[in-house]
Formats: sequence, C-alpha cells, structure tokens
Amino acid sequence: MKRIVMKFGGPAVETTEKIQKIAQKAIAAQQKGYEVVVVISSMATIRRELRAQAASISDEANKREMDVLIATGAQMTSALLALAIIEQGGQAISLAGWQAGIQTDYRHGNARIETIKADSITQHLQEGCIVVVAGFQGVDASGNITTIGKGGSETTAVAIAAAIEAQQVDVYTNVDGIYTADPNVVENARKLTELSYDEMLELSNLGAYVLHPRAIELAKKYDIPVIVRSAEQDIEGTLLKGEVEMEKNLIVRGVAYEADIIRLTVGFDSNEQASLSEIFTTLAEAGINVDIIVQAVIDGVKPTISFSIAKEEFAESLRVLESSKLSLGFSFADFEVGLAKVSIVGSGMVTNPGVAARMFSRLAKEHIPVKMVSTSDIKVSVVVAQDQMVQAANALHDEFNLA
Amino acid sequence: MKRIVMKFGGPAVETTEKIQKIAQKAIAAQQKGYEVVVVISSMATIRRELRAQAASISDEANKREMDVLIATGAQMTSALLALAIIEQGGQAISLAGWQAGIQTDYRHGNARIETIKADSITQHLQEGCIVVVAGFQGVDASGNITTIGKGGSETTAVAIAAAIEAQQVDVYTNVDGIYTADPNVVENARKLTELSYDEMLELSNLGAYVLHPRAIELAKKYDIPVIVRSAEQDIEGTLLKGEVEMEKNLIVRGVAYEADIIRLTVGFDSNEQASLSEIFTTLAEAGINVDIIVQAVIDGVKPTISFSIAKEEFAESLRVLESSKLSLGFSFADFEVGLAKVSIVGSGMVTNPGVAARMFSRLAKEHIPVKMVSTSDIKVSVVVAQDQMVQAANALHDEFNLA
Repeated sequence: MKRIVMKFGGPAVETTEKIQKIAQKAIAAQQKGYEVVVVISSMATIRRELRAQAASISDEANKREMDVLIATGAQMTSALLALAIIEQGGQAISLAGWQAGIQTDYRHGNARIETIKADSITQHLQEGCIVVVAGFQGVDASGNITTIGKGGSETTAVAIAAAIEAQQVDVYTNVDGIYTADPNVVENARKLTELSYDEMLELSNLGAYVLHPRAIELAKKYDIPVIVRSAEQDIEGTLLKGEVEMEKNLIVRGVAYEADIIRLTVGFDSNEQASLSEIFTTLAEAGINVDIIVQAVIDGVKPTISFSIAKEEFAESLRVLESSKLSLGFSFADFEVGLAKVSIVGSGMVTNPGVAARMFSRLAKEHIPVKMVSTSDIKVSVVVAQDQMVQAANALHDEFNLA
Repeated sequence: MKRIVMKFGGPAVETTEKIQKIAQKAIAAQQKGYEVVVVISSMATIRRELRAQAASISDEANKREMDVLIATGAQMTSALLALAIIEQGGQAISLAGWQAGIQTDYRHGNARIETIKADSITQHLQEGCIVVVAGFQGVDASGNITTIGKGGSETTAVAIAAAIEAQQVDVYTNVDGIYTADPNVVENARKLTELSYDEMLELSNLGAYVLHPRAIELAKKYDIPVIVRSAEQDIEGTLLKGEVEMEKNLIVRGVAYEADIIRLTVGFDSNEQASLSEIFTTLAEAGINVDIIVQAVIDGVKPTISFSIAKEEFAESLRVLESSKLSLGFSFADFEVGLAKVSIVGSGMVTNPGVAARMFSRLAKEHIPVKMVSTSDIKVSVVVAQDQMVQAANALHDEFNLA
C-alpha cells in the first residue's frame, strides 16, 4: 500500500473550521488509495497562551516542565482532527509523541529525534485508520516528554515518512510553494516547480522559513520527496528532491533574507588564548546556534572572533559567555544589534566563479555596506543593516535575473 | 519518611496566581518533613474551552479522542505547578497519568483505576522532589489515554496515597469542611469535625459533592484518613476516618440534596416479561448510573419499574432503552423531569427505628409529596419536586436538630 504523510501547522490549524478542512483533505487522500498519516502542530493561540501562563510564573522556566506544558498544544489539535475525521465518516486515531514511538534525546525544548518505533502507527494504518500524530514532541529514554524545537513538526513528518517508508511528504503551509525570493518583499519573485534538497537547505537556513533545515536534511538523508503546497488553495506546489534539472542560465535560484540578527564579538589579548573550539563548544553545549563566524586580528596581535546569532538567543549567549569568561580567557566582548542577513542560493554557483564578486559590486552600487560574509558551494550570505535588508534583496533578485 | 498527598482542583487552580499559592503550600508541607505528592486538576476554563472546541466539530464526540483532548488540561496545570515550585526554590517534577503509572480499564471518559505502578513517583520522592501528578487521567492496557470521570482527581489522589502508603490525603476545596447541610441553603448548617467514611459516602452519593464517592470508597478500603479543607483559608477541616465517636443524640448527622433528577418508568404487559436484571444490565453496559429503583404493579398484573437518573444521562438512557426495546420486552416507557432528591444520613439511624416515619410525617406537614423512597442502614432518601427541595432540606435539618 502506498503511504503518504501530510503535515499541517500555522494558520491551517488556527480554528476548528480549518481543522475540519484538514479532515476532508486526509479522507480524500485515503480515498485515492493512500495509507495516511497526518502530523499536526499546535494552534499558535494556544502555544502563546501557554507561554504567557508560564511567563507569569517564572522568568526562566524549567525546560522539562515547559516541554510538558507546550506538548499539550499539539495533543489537543491531534484529538480535534481525529474527532473531525470520525465525524465526517472516516476512521482515525490520534497519537501523542510517546504513543507514536518518537524517541528523542534529552535536550528539552530542542530535542532531536533518535528513532521512531513505528509499530503503533503501522498497525493502525493497516486497520484502516488515518493516524494523526501530535507534531513537535517525543519522549527521551527516561520517559520524559520532550519537544523538538523549531521545525519540530516538519521534522516529525519526514522522520515518520522515513520510518514507515512513505512515498512522499506533503507539507501544507501558508505559501503555495518556494519562490525565488519572498513575494511580499521582492515584487517579481517567481514560484519554482522543483528545487534540490541542497538548494532548499541553503534557502531555509537563510531565513526563508517555509521548511526547517532539519526536516530537509532528514528528507535528503532518506531521499523522501517533499512537496511544499498551499493549505488554502488546491494548486501545485514546489517539489523538493535529490536531483533537479538546471533551469537554463539560472546560476542563482533564489534570494533569501533573515531579520533580527545580532553580531557578538569576543577579543583576546594574544593568539595563545584564543580557542575557537572552546568558545563554540561552550555555546553549543548551551544549545545556542551560531551562524556566520569571522576571525580577525586587531593591531597585528589581538585576535577577535565574531559570530552571528538570532535575536532570541542573545540573552542566553551573553549569560553563557559571562559565566565562562575565565575559562575561555577572552578580555572583552562586544555586540551589534539591528542586523539582517541577505543571501543568494543556487547549485549553479559552484561552476560559476565571480558570483560573489557580482553580488558585492551590486551592493556597493546600492550603497549597502557589508558587515560579515559567509560562503558555501551553493550560496553567498552577507550581513547588512536591517533597514537595508529589503533594498538588498530586491537589488540581488534583479541582478541575477530571477524575475 | 512520612508521606502526604495533597489534592487541588476547582477554583483553587483557576489562575497562575492561585497555582503559585499551591506551590507555597506544597513546599511548606515538605519543610514540615513530609514527602509530598500533589494531584492537580485542570483549570475549569480550559476544560470548558476544550469541550466547546470538540462540540464545534462533533455532536457526539468519539470518547477515545475526547480523553486525549481533555487530558491535556491537567497536564498543563501540573507543569505550571511544577514551574511554580521550582521558581520558589523547591524541587519538583510533573507526571502525566501514563508517567505516574496510573493504569485504568478501557472505559473512556469514565475509566476506573486498576493499578498504580508507583515506582516513578516514589523514585522522584526519594530524590527530594515534590511530585505533581496530573489528576483525572491514566492509560489503559493498550496505552490509550483515558480519563477517570467524575471525581477523577480525588480518586487519583486516594489511589496514589494507597500505592505509596501515604499517611493522609488533604483535599483542598472551595468549602472548609463537611456540614450538616449545604450552608448556602440551610441557614443553621454546622461544620462537622469528624465523619465516618460510610456517612460521607451516603452524603456524597446524595449530592453533597465535596468528595466523590469513588474516592471515599477507596479511602475506606485502604483506611486512609482524608481531610477536607479550605484551599483559601488555613483553618481546620473535616477528618474522614473509619470509626467516629458518636455525637450525643445525633441520630441524623446531615441532610443532603441533589437537583436535576429524572424518573424513568418502563411498563410490561405481564410479570413474565419483566426482568430487572436485563434492564439494569443493559443500562450498566452503557455506563448509565441508576440511583433509586422502585418496582410496582398496576391493575394487579402489569408490572412497572421506575428508576431515577441524573439529567445528563437522560438522552443516553432513552437511546439505550429505545434500541433495546425488543430484547427487553417492555410495552411502554414514561418519564418525569423536574425532580430532586433529599436525604438524611447518620450511622445512628440503624439503631433508631422510626427515623423514616418521622421524616415522612414532617414532609407531610410541610405539604411536600414524596414521589420515590430509598433507604439504607444509614440514610433515607426521598424524591420530591425540585421546587420544594430547599424547603424540604431546611425542614429536615430542623426536624433532626442539626443546628
């Protein structure tokens, strides 16, 4: 039997009316001959309410207990969706993370899926049920409830697809596919019919948060086709897969941007004291995601290390650096807020030297100073002032003929 | 180490401020040298919201999925309470029903606790944690989430106390103890310092819903002292235990009443067709609680069976009777709404003949017709018109000198 995993979240689960529409879609997929698993996120209103309640009790809430609290959100929507499917004449069963066999590591709030014991899911599928799994959650080896952090529901969907050997994952979102740039910001942005996992990875890592990179990495690893499509309209989406035919002359496939970046810099008195590995190990152990890293030397002897982080992790980063100041041995720390990252992405870049140069010269022409740079085989990212982000994105979209 | 189980629900868990007060109480109990388990219910607002969402999807919601939905309520408050205890410097861990080892039967919405595998609870107690258990829920043998129905949280509290050999259960409520009658209705009602399990059982079965009879039965079975006390004020409550010293001249210890009673009557053409066991087996299998049962014969040959049920079970009862009409073989069914039950309770009754007679004659003097009667060793109940309920309760409180 062909199997499909459908993932719904965000605005698509905001009301019980919308949940009833998801039920229709799931039943329709089953009637087309699929065995259907639906992964569903929490209503955002509920998640906000839960966070507000916790915040009224504690400024720095215990992470294990936050997971217990937050996990209730998707458990609710999973039950409501199962109710809606049954009400419409279908057969359905909801499973919380622990019931679906989703085993994670112990990192509360940002756990990683380790294995999925899919026996329960497959058994219910074979009984003819549409299986509704509460996204974003699992249990650690000691049976504590964990949440899977950003992109948790997409990641759950892809991981389940791998575990039950599903044919594809349909991710229903508030956009109808992947665009060459954010259509809200870049006027001539165009929808792509296909995109490789790697290109999508770079795009999503760069703030085009249609799909979380963890989900794409997992899809790439197990080679599972993922379709990003509209939850509202029944139109074609964008297919993510391993190999994508090059669209002619398209060196750059998309422009992405991300606001609310902060640059942190730590400085050392001498080279001996500066240990990149110690700093980033310390930050990683605290679960802080560092993005761009730049090393420089001031006055010929004093090394500095700059790195960019998301705004939400600013307070925690400062706390970690402060409490590790002695062991890390830096002599000063400094930061810059109000930054943004703008990037160009495309598999064609690797065979086309001079793409970065063309990018920098266009930004210079637009009088946009570049504060940090990072490159990979298929992308170039620059950090600029946040108030120039939109201008930069439009200029680059134009420069590389993406319209 | 002495152990105590504290149970909070209703108005005591309505806001995060109130949950912070519970945290104080739990920490104070621990500081007195107890190992502390807290059983906490859902916020009523959340429960109502969840039910409303389900109702917007389905008129007759699937019971398994309703349990998944409703169980999130207490999981939330348990996490919030653990957060509050930790914020106040204590050590705490929340456990959902399945984590606390609460194994129930399969009856969704009205499950019974079968066993409690308390290893997890006792382990965390020994580590110095205040263990917060989400009340009202468990899992069946197949790992489905169940809810324990009316009085579920009290029952959970007493069952846990039995499993961990706790010294007592403190039930924090919106009343400060058990009264000779409802003080809102009977002006001269008086608080009792002690009450036997049996007396309390009759009182609670009769609508004085301070404690659910299931919880009291369990407390009686394992001989666990239960203290009913105020969540708001720090004053003495009422102690429930096995043996209570007779208060002088108090044949009757309390007056209870219950509104929204419905009488159902089914009639048969001949004695051969009337099977009490078949009717009540059928109703029991549908999970309907029948209270008073009266058998009568009309015209010397036609037997009728009348029984009282709670208003909420009226629709389901009619449905069950209708669909079993052929197999049960009755020729007509009939009902009367707008009824109430008023009862007198007291262990002294068994050695005092004439208590029922005194009750009936006082009601006659008050011109209150009695529609059904039921008696036990320690109580007499009558069904009267609902609009005469308060008058009847006051008259009986006065008649038996309870003020």
